[in-house]
Amino acid sequence: MNRRPTLAVVAQAAGVSLKTASRVLNGEPNVAPATRERVQDAAASLGFRRNAVAADLARGGFSRLVGFITGDLANEFYSALASGIERELREHGLQLLTASSDEDAERESALTGELLERRVGALIVTPAGADHSALRGEIAAGLTVVVVDRPAAGMDVDTVVIDNRGGARAATLHLLEHGHRRIGFVGDEPHLWTYQERSAEFLAVMAEAGVPDARRWLRHGAHSAAAARDLAAELLAGPDAPTAVLAANNRATVGTLQALRDVPGGADVAVVGFDDFELADLLGITVVAYDAVEMGRRAAELAVARSAEPDRPVELVVLPTTVLARGSGERPPR
Amino acid sequence: MNRRPTLAVVAQAAGVSLKTASRVLNGEPNVAPATRERVQDAAASLGFRRNAVAADLARGGFSRLVGFITGDLANEFYSALASGIERELREHGLQLLTASSDEDAERESALTGELLERRVGALIVTPAGADHSALRGEIAAGLTVVVVDRPAAGMDVDTVVIDNRGGARAATLHLLEHGHRRIGFVGDEPHLWTYQERSAEFLAVMAEAGVPDARRWLRHGAHSAAAARDLAAELLAGPDAPTAVLAANNRATVGTLQALRDVPGGADVAVVGFDDFELADLLGITVVAYDAVEMGRRAAELAVARSAEPDRPVELVVLPTTVLARGSGERPPR
Repeated sequence: MNRRPTLAVVAQAAGVSLKTASRVLNGEPNVAPATRERVQDAAASLGFRRNAVAADLARGGFSRLVGFITGDLANEFYSALASGIERELREHGLQLLTASSDEDAERESALTGELLERRVGALIVTPAGADHSALRGEIAAGLTVVVVDRPAAGMDVDTVVIDNRGGARAATLHLLEHGHRRIGFVGDEPHLWTYQERSAEFLAVMAEAGVPDARRWLRHGAHSAAAARDLAAELLAGPDAPTAVLAANNRATVGTLQALRDVPGGADVAVVGFDDFELADLLGITVVAYDAVEMGRRAAELAVARSAEPDRPVELVVLPTTVLARGSGERPPR
Repeated sequence: MNRRPTLAVVAQAAGVSLKTASRVLNGEPNVAPATRERVQDAAASLGFRRNAVAADLARGGFSRLVGFITGDLANEFYSALASGIERELREHGLQLLTASSDEDAERESALTGELLERRVGALIVTPAGADHSALRGEIAAGLTVVVVDRPAAGMDVDTVVIDNRGGARAATLHLLEHGHRRIGFVGDEPHLWTYQERSAEFLAVMAEAGVPDARRWLRHGAHSAAAARDLAAELLAGPDAPTAVLAANNRATVGTLQALRDVPGGADVAVVGFDDFELADLLGITVVAYDAVEMGRRAAELAVARSAEPDRPVELVVLPTTVLARGSGERPPR
């Protein structure tokens, strides 16, 4: 795909040594102006592009690029994270490159390799799997790594998460306070830390409220709206159907709303969604909200700070959540 | 940020020449098994990572990475494009790296440079500005470039767009057929080609229908939902307020819906949105739909084909649009 001339071709065209051509094209001093001009003209007319990686290394390995490896950019939560990261990086003259792991630990590891081979200056990751051995090696070798949304178990690394337990507790209490006892929980894939935190807290609050066996209304696998829709439809068709649903992520909320539209009496079912989304306001959906853009911004801030000062203490940032009441979560039980 | 050992350090630790270490780490043949093992052990224990760029160049410049430079990943249209591109690239063992130009031509040019210096194998771009001189030089130098969503004016390059004029025509006719004559148009930034195509066709259809001076209901600048909301609110508060709105992109639709919620009688105003969006179905919003994921897939397909066969004829792919009637576009005029 690349028919670019090598440095040697440029040097030959300019009638200078390889070393002189390299000096000019890397902006080093002590080259006669006429020689400099000749090399620059040759490079321009031949379409030469310096190898930024080699140049970065020569300057000590600094790179203006920061990599962000995330689950799925088509999910509005991850794109909000990315926009927060990008905003902060630009303040520091850095540029974001994003790649998607599709929540696949093997792909995450391959992407980590691809980005590092291209000498990104730092990595921000939403860890897909439980095995972070690839990252551990990189951190030991001096790479700046920040994890966001989920911790990387057993790793001493800067981390930005939200208060998942606090959010799940507030949402469950909100529904209990509006008179519900039979509350469904539609959650993401069970291996995800955020699912584990939110579902554990939901069960704890239900037990504290004296609701026996709330686990019967617990569903997982809602990583897409279509999957969530099926889960919610099945849950609401049961003999002991819940009068309220805690939809534990933005995909689960959309799928739950689709299911409620289609089942008889669905409009009466109370809903609280975890994660705010753009049209939640128009649709009157009560949500557990937090600032996803700020999450990204803080992660980028930590990446910049760690790069500047590799030995600074490791930080854990936990951002707060809040329940925004908009109608769907305040319906009384039928 | 990088404290990695060089190849020379690995070679020294393994007690072999630089050339032998390089052969082993680039997977080249004709090295004694014991030597190979010694070099690999040294590389692993030192945390050595081969320089992929140098290795790519040695193999003739092929890279597994494809860059996608786009307007704003937080917009669901662009993330759908990215997911289509990614899906197709994976079929070919390629990986996507995405960066955002924020619709800024200067940033687009800088990003192009950053990605090329890291030897991405091909670039897919939604061109931000009218000046494509940076790309022109790259294409002349043999880089694979595909543009998507908007053409790159004056450049002979593979292009994937949708039928913007057909979609705008169908949407305007849809509202005219439901009895509307005073139709508002809330559009994006006027320098964007998609705005120009859609607004020109809207005005043409209105003129054909004998509606004089439809330009009085034409608004632009709706690149965010907040901006669209203000534009729509102003339009609907006027003395000659439209009874229907053609919201010319997904941001414009969200903003228009927010404005309609807040103005008296807003629920009676007919709305057709350009671009489908996930919750349009739940909200009952009539839209001009097309397959954004397929758009991305086709762009990636062209990038792969062009890389394999640089001299193939340049292609222009135009994907169809269709009006999905869901209620909001079928309301009669008040």
